[in-house]
Amino acid sequence: MLQGHQSWVFANRPVIRSVATVGGPYEAQGPVAEDFDLLHGDLWLGQDSFEKAGKKMMEEACEIAVQKAGLQKQDIQFFLAGDLLNQITPSSFAARTLAIPYLGLYGACSTSMESLALAALFVDSKSAQYVLAGTGSHNAAVEKQFRYPTEYGGQKPPTAQWTVTGAGVALVADKGEGPVITRATIGRIVDMGISDPFNMGAAMAPAAADTITAHFRDFDVDHQEYDLIATGDLGKVGYRICADLMQKHGVELPEVKYTDCGLLIYDMERQRDVLAGGSGCGCSATVTYGHILNRMKRGELNKVLIVATGALLSPLSFQQKESIPCIAHAVAIENVQ
Amino acid sequence: MLQGHQSWVFANRPVIRSVATVGGPYEAQGPVAEDFDLLHGDLWLGQDSFEKAGKKMMEEACEIAVQKAGLQKQDIQFFLAGDLLNQITPSSFAARTLAIPYLGLYGACSTSMESLALAALFVDSKSAQYVLAGTGSHNAAVEKQFRYPTEYGGQKPPTAQWTVTGAGVALVADKGEGPVITRATIGRIVDMGISDPFNMGAAMAPAAADTITAHFRDFDVDHQEYDLIATGDLGKVGYRICADLMQKHGVELPEVKYTDCGLLIYDMERQRDVLAGGSGCGCSATVTYGHILNRMKRGELNKVLIVATGALLSPLSFQQKESIPCIAHAVAIENVQ
Repeated sequence: MLQGHQSWVFANRPVIRSVATVGGPYEAQGPVAEDFDLLHGDLWLGQDSFEKAGKKMMEEACEIAVQKAGLQKQDIQFFLAGDLLNQITPSSFAARTLAIPYLGLYGACSTSMESLALAALFVDSKSAQYVLAGTGSHNAAVEKQFRYPTEYGGQKPPTAQWTVTGAGVALVADKGEGPVITRATIGRIVDMGISDPFNMGAAMAPAAADTITAHFRDFDVDHQEYDLIATGDLGKVGYRICADLMQKHGVELPEVKYTDCGLLIYDMERQRDVLAGGSGCGCSATVTYGHILNRMKRGELNKVLIVATGALLSPLSFQQKESIPCIAHAVAIENVQ
Repeated sequence: MLQGHQSWVFANRPVIRSVATVGGPYEAQGPVAEDFDLLHGDLWLGQDSFEKAGKKMMEEACEIAVQKAGLQKQDIQFFLAGDLLNQITPSSFAARTLAIPYLGLYGACSTSMESLALAALFVDSKSAQYVLAGTGSHNAAVEKQFRYPTEYGGQKPPTAQWTVTGAGVALVADKGEGPVITRATIGRIVDMGISDPFNMGAAMAPAAADTITAHFRDFDVDHQEYDLIATGDLGKVGYRICADLMQKHGVELPEVKYTDCGLLIYDMERQRDVLAGGSGCGCSATVTYGHILNRMKRGELNKVLIVATGALLSPLSFQQKESIPCIAHAVAIENVQ
């Protein structure tokens, strides 16, 4: 049900019945590696293109999530997914394999929470019993499309982020065991005029701040409502800017409570290639459905707000000298007490 | 609320409070030209790229729809949109202009009904009072991306379709005057192995037949339930195949009741360039929100089922020799008696 200007409250408390995360070789070396269900030793996954490897990861994540929930694919009414590749082909090809009625989404790296918010809405409104919501990205496929062929070896500035190779999926259900989805806030486009695709953290930070502020306003709460607020994926630069913007707007967001998925997935000291941190649809999806939900399961966290951010540029819009329109969608997840 | 396997019934009957359609010069010469709200004499719309012209059309359609409904942009809670361009930039840039909380969608030419079905669900479940749902396409921007630069003048086979330059938007509301949205069926991917992007009608026809059959099954109805069933956009070739498939499956769909948006938007005799007919996100959107809703307003039709079809390929998936995954989503629109 609508709450405030741009938020939903889910009175029927849809359950995250199961989750699944799949990662690549670089993620396997990261500090949250043990939070993945499946890690691959190479980028190819036995496929003949990186795009097909990306599709394969999505399929694997969906399969594991369905299996963990003790369900069959036929039990799932809808599959909500998207990714970064042109025409979101990895998602659509995965939907072909799954043969579940499918709605394609595009929110760049915000797709993780766009799909989860919609899945919760479907279940909450009794428009579905089971919904699979997920997204993923593949470093080589995405870097090739948005930047250079990786073989080119072009240098990047320290503000650039590293596209995660990974897929994360949640199976949302009307009943069963698991944390529940209680609220969502849908973001609007915020564009402060940044046009540098090697500094997407800075571009996306104002959108994250806008959505967190809107969430607090719509529910009349502050940071004390949550044990953790995680943006994804602003990286080092964007994290700093988002924290500063919140302070500037007079909305308290203590750093002890605020983190970013792009800072959690890699070891920022040891894995220096990642520069300002992780990014890509797979980043907030795998960190949330893996690391953060595992922390909730262990009782370290009970109520979290995930604020997935997306930079909605295209290589063409960049070439046409457009700035980067950014967005962030927030979803609140709670342990059942 | 969920009905059957993959459908929704909207008990609160969300209203299409207003619609708006914008078209280009070739659409202005077509047989349904007078059903457009705004027609442009050239492809540029005063912009310096075709992509920006596509964005401009989306913005114009949204503005007209909001104005027609006697509302302000701030009254609208959510904007649901997508298009064919990489990373759906025309939609996202239009969302930046609108500053309405935004969910990006990708269903290729099925986006018209994907967005309308979701808008109806939002309003029906009281998750929104007003939702703008829309999509568009721009012939030159899309042909350039998916096929050749148009200047190249490459010949096309007679099975190819012509991308519509147009945008169509519906403003869905919880109350007010207008036809109501009563049902939706979400399609699954159907891929019969066709990989020829110059024959997308044939590729998409089985998806349309699958969704119509699912709709009839989920609601336990047949063609007699509707005054008109319109697919979009199968064109000449796909229309024939869909009709044949339905017959083969023993599901009656009399031709007098069945049409295709890709056959309605151009004069197939006079506008020979369109070959097998219209296509592109803007086709089913402008024909439905313009021509078909005008026929409903005049009382010629009272209950229609729009089945928007999408070919979810990308130029890259085609180059990698993948076949074309296709989908169709159906939405039922009724006059209030």
